[in-house]
Amino acid sequence: MLKKKRKKVILFILILFCLAVPLLNAQDAEPSINFQIPIDTVWVLFTAFLVFFMNTGFGMLESGLCRAKNTVNILAKNFIVFAIASASFWVLGWGLMFGNGNGFMGLEGLFFASGADNSPATGDAYQGAYAAISWTGVPFWAKFIFQLVFAGTAATIVSGAVAERIKFPIFIIFSFVLVAFLYPITGHWIWGGGWLASLGFYDFAGSTAVHSVGGWAALAGIILLGPRYGKYRKDGQSNPILGHNMAIATLGALVLWFGWFGFNPGSTMGVGDGSAIAHIVVTTNTAAATAILSATVMSRILLKKPDLSMILNGGLAGLVAITAGCAFVSVASAAIIGLIAGVLVVVSVIMWDKLKIDDPVGALSVHLVNGVFGTLAVGLFAEDGITGTATGNGLFISGSFDLLGRQALGVLAVGGFTFAISFAVWFILKKTAGIRVSQEEEIKGLDIGEHGNEAYSGFQIFN
Amino acid sequence: MLKKKRKKVILFILILFCLAVPLLNAQDAEPSINFQIPIDTVWVLFTAFLVFFMNTGFGMLESGLCRAKNTVNILAKNFIVFAIASASFWVLGWGLMFGNGNGFMGLEGLFFASGADNSPATGDAYQGAYAAISWTGVPFWAKFIFQLVFAGTAATIVSGAVAERIKFPIFIIFSFVLVAFLYPITGHWIWGGGWLASLGFYDFAGSTAVHSVGGWAALAGIILLGPRYGKYRKDGQSNPILGHNMAIATLGALVLWFGWFGFNPGSTMGVGDGSAIAHIVVTTNTAAATAILSATVMSRILLKKPDLSMILNGGLAGLVAITAGCAFVSVASAAIIGLIAGVLVVVSVIMWDKLKIDDPVGALSVHLVNGVFGTLAVGLFAEDGITGTATGNGLFISGSFDLLGRQALGVLAVGGFTFAISFAVWFILKKTAGIRVSQEEEIKGLDIGEHGNEAYSGFQIFN
Amino acid sequence: MLKKKRKKVILFILILFCLAVPLLNAQDAEPSINFQIPIDTVWVLFTAFLVFFMNTGFGMLESGLCRAKNTVNILAKNFIVFAIASASFWVLGWGLMFGNGNGFMGLEGLFFASGADNSPATGDAYQGAYAAISWTGVPFWAKFIFQLVFAGTAATIVSGAVAERIKFPIFIIFSFVLVAFLYPITGHWIWGGGWLASLGFYDFAGSTAVHSVGGWAALAGIILLGPRYGKYRKDGQSNPILGHNMAIATLGALVLWFGWFGFNPGSTMGVGDGSAIAHIVVTTNTAAATAILSATVMSRILLKKPDLSMILNGGLAGLVAITAGCAFVSVASAAIIGLIAGVLVVVSVIMWDKLKIDDPVGALSVHLVNGVFGTLAVGLFAEDGITGTATGNGLFISGSFDLLGRQALGVLAVGGFTFAISFAVWFILKKTAGIRVSQEEEIKGLDIGEHGNEAYSGFQIFN
Repeated sequence: MLKKKRKKVILFILILFCLAVPLLNAQDAEPSINFQIPIDTVWVLFTAFLVFFMNTGFGMLESGLCRAKNTVNILAKNFIVFAIASASFWVLGWGLMFGNGNGFMGLEGLFFASGADNSPATGDAYQGAYAAISWTGVPFWAKFIFQLVFAGTAATIVSGAVAERIKFPIFIIFSFVLVAFLYPITGHWIWGGGWLASLGFYDFAGSTAVHSVGGWAALAGIILLGPRYGKYRKDGQSNPILGHNMAIATLGALVLWFGWFGFNPGSTMGVGDGSAIAHIVVTTNTAAATAILSATVMSRILLKKPDLSMILNGGLAGLVAITAGCAFVSVASAAIIGLIAGVLVVVSVIMWDKLKIDDPVGALSVHLVNGVFGTLAVGLFAEDGITGTATGNGLFISGSFDLLGRQALGVLAVGGFTFAISFAVWFILKKTAGIRVSQEEEIKGLDIGEHGNEAYSGFQIFN
Repeated sequence: MLKKKRKKVILFILILFCLAVPLLNAQDAEPSINFQIPIDTVWVLFTAFLVFFMNTGFGMLESGLCRAKNTVNILAKNFIVFAIASASFWVLGWGLMFGNGNGFMGLEGLFFASGADNSPATGDAYQGAYAAISWTGVPFWAKFIFQLVFAGTAATIVSGAVAERIKFPIFIIFSFVLVAFLYPITGHWIWGGGWLASLGFYDFAGSTAVHSVGGWAALAGIILLGPRYGKYRKDGQSNPILGHNMAIATLGALVLWFGWFGFNPGSTMGVGDGSAIAHIVVTTNTAAATAILSATVMSRILLKKPDLSMILNGGLAGLVAITAGCAFVSVASAAIIGLIAGVLVVVSVIMWDKLKIDDPVGALSVHLVNGVFGTLAVGLFAEDGITGTATGNGLFISGSFDLLGRQALGVLAVGGFTFAISFAVWFILKKTAGIRVSQEEEIKGLDIGEHGNEAYSGFQIFN
Repeated sequence: MLKKKRKKVILFILILFCLAVPLLNAQDAEPSINFQIPIDTVWVLFTAFLVFFMNTGFGMLESGLCRAKNTVNILAKNFIVFAIASASFWVLGWGLMFGNGNGFMGLEGLFFASGADNSPATGDAYQGAYAAISWTGVPFWAKFIFQLVFAGTAATIVSGAVAERIKFPIFIIFSFVLVAFLYPITGHWIWGGGWLASLGFYDFAGSTAVHSVGGWAALAGIILLGPRYGKYRKDGQSNPILGHNMAIATLGALVLWFGWFGFNPGSTMGVGDGSAIAHIVVTTNTAAATAILSATVMSRILLKKPDLSMILNGGLAGLVAITAGCAFVSVASAAIIGLIAGVLVVVSVIMWDKLKIDDPVGALSVHLVNGVFGTLAVGLFAEDGITGTATGNGLFISGSFDLLGRQALGVLAVGGFTFAISFAVWFILKKTAGIRVSQEEEIKGLDIGEHGNEAYSGFQIFN
């Protein structure tokens, strides 16, 4: 009996132990589950900061490629534009883009990003006004800042294209409208659960949503502003207007390349799939590299010598072109996309000039032309299984025009909407306040006219 | 019997299995617990690097806002100052600031950061000389580098204010003293377990501990140095002395904004609470944005045109002002704090000029005035429950002056101590070695006088 | 009987529970194990981006230290060089360096980084063509991008040394050869499982593998190119040729310092040991700091005044010198290594000049001299137990010359191979296409000659 009792005691102790160990483990293991949130948060914030830093890149690139007499103005525009974007995206843009609504726009939690929200809950657990972005498990304000820096990029693109003749306050007003209304609405279509997303349109990090939107808004502005004084001669030939500081222009292009490592890989908004992120980093870099090489060669062929501004814009063109497809195409396809982008940017700089569309920094060739091309390239090169998203495969993989058609539809819809409304906004501003500085001010330089400053006090500069 | 035996065998196997599975799990789960350390380490190092990068921002901002003839000198100061800070904070500063000691200063592990330490142990498990910073679970040297880059910032602030007339070796000596003694002592009061922390003074990322300390030290230096040659006329009017390169000045301001995403969010020194970090990112950015807007408007009102240096300093003013409260105030309050900061910076630039306090880059208006304002703003806008820290609520939330009073006490104590000792140090240096270059050298430029260099060889520059 | 049955039922339920809880835990705990991969991936990518950003640093430093008339050319070289490196390392370099092969070079998976690979599997679980780098558990393309940015650095080092007289296409060709063949082969010896690694040669982040390789390749180029026109007088004295923009040169040096926080700490390629990473950060920064101080003092002694380019190169020299040993030496040893590096760089700039080896930016003094010194310093200062790797201790710790001898062997082998093959490549290029621009073009400037551009349009610049 004793022996039996002892046996029972041992059995009891064993069972207790069995019960205790897993419970102890449970305590240990439980917090580990939440590590995904801090890791993802670190990643999303880190990449958001890199994208924010692209403001520096745009500011340096644009001012370097323009004339010394307009430098302060361009710098001021590029510095204030993110302040404007921060305000307008908070006040309205975020809600229009990500608020629960219909296929066209967000309707819930519209103002001051103040809708109900239980982030970082994801999927079915998410209850709030911004369900379209509940797929990422990061805190609410991390989502906000990441999307804000993207919105800011769209506005910055406009800055360079309208440089050297636009009134400072007009640029501020247009930027506010762009980030508060235009960008968020088409953004809703693509990333906010809107109609384009439902149709199966793919734009991973924004060749269309960000870059071509900025480009279309800029094109409307350029058309209504007209070319800079002295750019086109009576005989129809164009005068070259040289950038005043290629050192800071190159600095800008390098900072943009650096920032793109936030732009594309960061658009995963989490590190659940490290392989996907690493793949995106390499497709992004490869397209930039091959575009630089092809732009250099094209520049040598068409312009006799490898022009530095073409080389710089070549790199940016490759980056814009791979932005839509970075997660959907192979590294080899990325190399081809880059090669094409580098050719496109050189050819289109020449084309816009022939059309007397005066774009001082080549923003249309980089962001609009290659934003469109990059979006269509998804329809050509996309391969299911690259990083987990199934686009249905592009033409060169599947032999089907299906995806390419959806991509083209997106390009047209976003382009048509953005260009039309932008044109209307610029037009109203032109007819009311006037959008262009006086010819006298333009000749003297906007630095003195708009700001009462000069950029390089003490230096002897020819005008 | 056989059946019974079989039953027992089955029971035994089951029990063994029960024992085995949790033990296997235990092996799997155990390493997971340590993920907090690597994640926190990545975060702390990443943000430390961003704050380090602010040296680039200060260097570009300060040299851009001064004259071409003093550029090499300003660049040399801004490059060497972090080397000095690295040495002096290692030799003594760290120990004075975080060593276990009394309410006034650290006493244990004073020299070469070599006290006993068992980081990353936290709380009661921590045993070592630096208990005040044992709340963060990162390795020892990660704590050190993060605190070092903050100490370096304080020294850099002085650089701009005393620019264009201070002797190069004197600046080096003062920087050493500041980072070895002055900054760590008031830092100990606030972040090292000293008397201000005990009283309930709150300064999340250093509006007082870093920015106003740099500002007070600079003010003492400016007073003893006197204004630059030719700055004030006999009739009391001041001559504007223009910056020579607004492109690099703007670059500097953008790099500082970028770096502030390390400065404020990094001060969590861990990612245990991702929501808090994301909130801090957004309050920080929002205050910068609204300050830029209000500084632009104020500049337009008071100076007729939106002056670029005012716009840039507006952004920095907003960043300094939100630094103390970024974790304690709502996004809307951050927007208001920024709006006020942008007004303050424009008004105070004009005020210092009226007082003939010659601050070439506006460092006092940005770091001192808004460092004080930001610290007091905690006493106005702080709300418990924003990110976990309970400050007791500011005046506008609680209706009580209690927190505001504690904040004001901290401002006065730190300001009084830093200004008095800095004044004494500058005074001794003035009476012994002399702190100012000769008038001849000042007119010719410090680049030739102090370094035998010129910044822009080949360019034709007016003096 | 009933009681007994009830007992049995209870026992059964308990056992089921025991079985269930650990299985539930198993489900919870399992994903936690994978957190190491995303954390490591974030770290490796983040630091890779910082190293990529060093391209910006090199571009600004080199162009700032050369003349205005060659600025576009230097910028173009520094922008395109990473495109070249990206292409050549993908096409061949990666495979030669990390492919499974013999002690001399990789042989498997040579082309387009397309060998079999099951990363992030590590150790015995790894099955693929790149076993030498299977010690880090990050995805394949994360390994690739990290190694690519290092390869790019080696090519960039050459750029500065051959500046102001090399033909643009020749530099492109040499860069391709360097990154496709030369760098990967000696890289294989050190990091790819080759013969030097087997012998116990230690180079943590590349004082030899990256910096001295770049330096030896540059030295061969300089010898075959000859000095710049006008650099040396007939009486043997050298004419100083001043940098044209010390603001962007200083910007470059600060960006490089910033980037080095990716270079050295990132070479852990994972955050398994946070203490090691933090230690590396502090040794890296400390060596930079002390080198700046000693270079400033040396410059004052030997050149009368603290020359800014010496101060900048001093910081870089300290960074290069600590790169090999950052993980193996104490913080105090790092301070001593930095002090020596700062002296070495100033002395060797003067020495190369005496030898009529015309290196416009001091690349040999920074990367070659201090790359060699830093590698040997491991043999002097290395201490087992610093961060986990056992080198066998350096001379000053062990009293044995063993490690120092192995380090010297590595320096000689890598230097001999790289210099000899580089010399042959430069020689063939010289005898076929010619490597140097015409004297007329050199006098006029390479910006016009090679690119048809000017860097500072509008500015009045003396030639």
